[in-house]
Amino acid sequence: MRDALIPPVPDAGAATLPALGIDIGGTKVAGGIVAPDGTILDTARRATPGRSVEATEDAIVAVVQELAGRSGEQLVGVGVGAAGWFDRTGDTVLFSPHLAWRNHSLRKDLEGRLQRPLWVGNDADAAAWAEYRYGAARGSDLALVITLGTGIGGGIVLGGRLQRGAHGVAGEWGHMRVVPDGRLCACGNRGCWEQYASGNALGQTAREVARSSPAAAALLLDRVDGEADRLTGEHVATAAAAGDPLAVELLCEVGAWLGQGIADLAAVLDPEVVVIGGGVSVLGEMVLAPARERLERALPGRGFRPGPRVVVAQLGAQAGLVGAADLVRSAVGEGSA
Amino acid sequence: MRDALIPPVPDAGAATLPALGIDIGGTKVAGGIVAPDGTILDTARRATPGRSVEATEDAIVAVVQELAGRSGEQLVGVGVGAAGWFDRTGDTVLFSPHLAWRNHSLRKDLEGRLQRPLWVGNDADAAAWAEYRYGAARGSDLALVITLGTGIGGGIVLGGRLQRGAHGVAGEWGHMRVVPDGRLCACGNRGCWEQYASGNALGQTAREVARSSPAAAALLLDRVDGEADRLTGEHVATAAAAGDPLAVELLCEVGAWLGQGIADLAAVLDPEVVVIGGGVSVLGEMVLAPARERLERALPGRGFRPGPRVVVAQLGAQAGLVGAADLVRSAVGEGSA
Repeated sequence: MRDALIPPVPDAGAATLPALGIDIGGTKVAGGIVAPDGTILDTARRATPGRSVEATEDAIVAVVQELAGRSGEQLVGVGVGAAGWFDRTGDTVLFSPHLAWRNHSLRKDLEGRLQRPLWVGNDADAAAWAEYRYGAARGSDLALVITLGTGIGGGIVLGGRLQRGAHGVAGEWGHMRVVPDGRLCACGNRGCWEQYASGNALGQTAREVARSSPAAAALLLDRVDGEADRLTGEHVATAAAAGDPLAVELLCEVGAWLGQGIADLAAVLDPEVVVIGGGVSVLGEMVLAPARERLERALPGRGFRPGPRVVVAQLGAQAGLVGAADLVRSAVGEGSA
Repeated sequence: MRDALIPPVPDAGAATLPALGIDIGGTKVAGGIVAPDGTILDTARRATPGRSVEATEDAIVAVVQELAGRSGEQLVGVGVGAAGWFDRTGDTVLFSPHLAWRNHSLRKDLEGRLQRPLWVGNDADAAAWAEYRYGAARGSDLALVITLGTGIGGGIVLGGRLQRGAHGVAGEWGHMRVVPDGRLCACGNRGCWEQYASGNALGQTAREVARSSPAAAALLLDRVDGEADRLTGEHVATAAAAGDPLAVELLCEVGAWLGQGIADLAAVLDPEVVVIGGGVSVLGEMVLAPARERLERALPGRGFRPGPRVVVAQLGAQAGLVGAADLVRSAVGEGSA
């Protein structure tokens, strides 16, 4: 933990100790004890009481206490990744779409309650770091990790460092505008990328098709007793796995939008590898193949330049807590936690 | 110059010597001798014979010889910025929209002919570096420099380094797709940002309006004897300066597209400052004011996060050669030229 008067001391031993990682999503607080090689030694979880700041912090503290209590080993600290936008220092949650934080000093609260070295930051940044340290982005000098879930999150690892931008909110490419006057986004804008390439986008497109062409969507509608409004991305995913041609087509469309956005990111950043993680990534090649196909056609300068490799994430749903744990270990090692 | 067997030696004295900078555009090769403080001590130029690789290299060599011949001082080396996409090493021009280079080993050719330490790279990267070292991006930890000319070029300076991406072509954000099925771009895609926010975009919009609504465009058409097809961005700029309301409106539209693209880049990279350079930037607030207005409305997370400052470049048309000169000086200082 930090003190205004006593600068934190680098701890060379930190690299050998396990750390506690926490991933806070819209519905749950998931925690784990993570060894320096990325192995998860123990896990615990609580439901996230999304509307209350205090109750969310209570859930974090409970998960930490449960895991620390069971662990026989010394823990280097606690890394907390949360679905929110953080300022550059990681002290303050500026904004969270699914949780109650608005300009909230999460770090200070947790320091007071946990009395342990902390890293606090964005969950997609933590997941990106995990893929860089232990997963699909290992060894890359410039990797973008795109987290496809309800929306789109992201993290940038360049030159072995997480790049968080001037104000802490880099990698929020889910809110690039890809369609002028397009679909309304939770951020208040229209046409954001995450409205076309995410789990939510899949559900929305399915509902639109089911309403306008119920005959074509008969197999999908069977899954929701004919009520188009109940269709979600998960229904489409299940139907596609069962061979429903419309569902397969809808995954292709989301994949194509994913590939187009990767082409746009390649124009801006020219990454070596783009790692696709998050819940939607379990669909694998059903989404990635059309994404690569579109990227190949849309990459600016194609034929004269190499494009990024597009690969699926390796750490699955645990990436966030694994990355958060390693980030607090790194911070303690550098004397900045 | 480099040799496969003898590694280049860092030269601590390089920081105190003037360097020769070259900027190769579609129509001219401009050169200058640049002091370490960014002052231009002498200049020379030649026309660019765009269709011939050899003739372009002849023009570069002629400018170097003219300037070196007139200079009494020792020169640290030659920096060459060119309107093309370079590979990561700077050895090869992958592609150039306005010049004849296709996978051409420009660096090797110039090493053989000039026998001096070299930096070779993208002209917008060189201009971005100049703004970082001497201009509007000085002191910034994360600056994007957007060069608005015929098209859109760009450079990224992060942590005091030019960031060129995994394959050397970062900052080509002019080819982000901002309109699905939009205007055809020279790159072969449709809807690229530079088709909506550049000198060319200004001309194209003016021609479209003049054809469809000649009465509204009467003042613009007066400038081209009523021939809408002859209208260019420069006609619009001159007309706007003279108070033509339609021309002012067209500049606002280009400015709004500029601001929208900056909002998209802010979602991806979260820069501290965005510097607008290139020929269009001389229009100043006529374009920048509507750009800032759009950015303020379109910035994802606005109200909860700071956005980038948007400022006009300070080094004007000389930015490319000033930056190229400083980049060869840095390379020699580090032993990498």
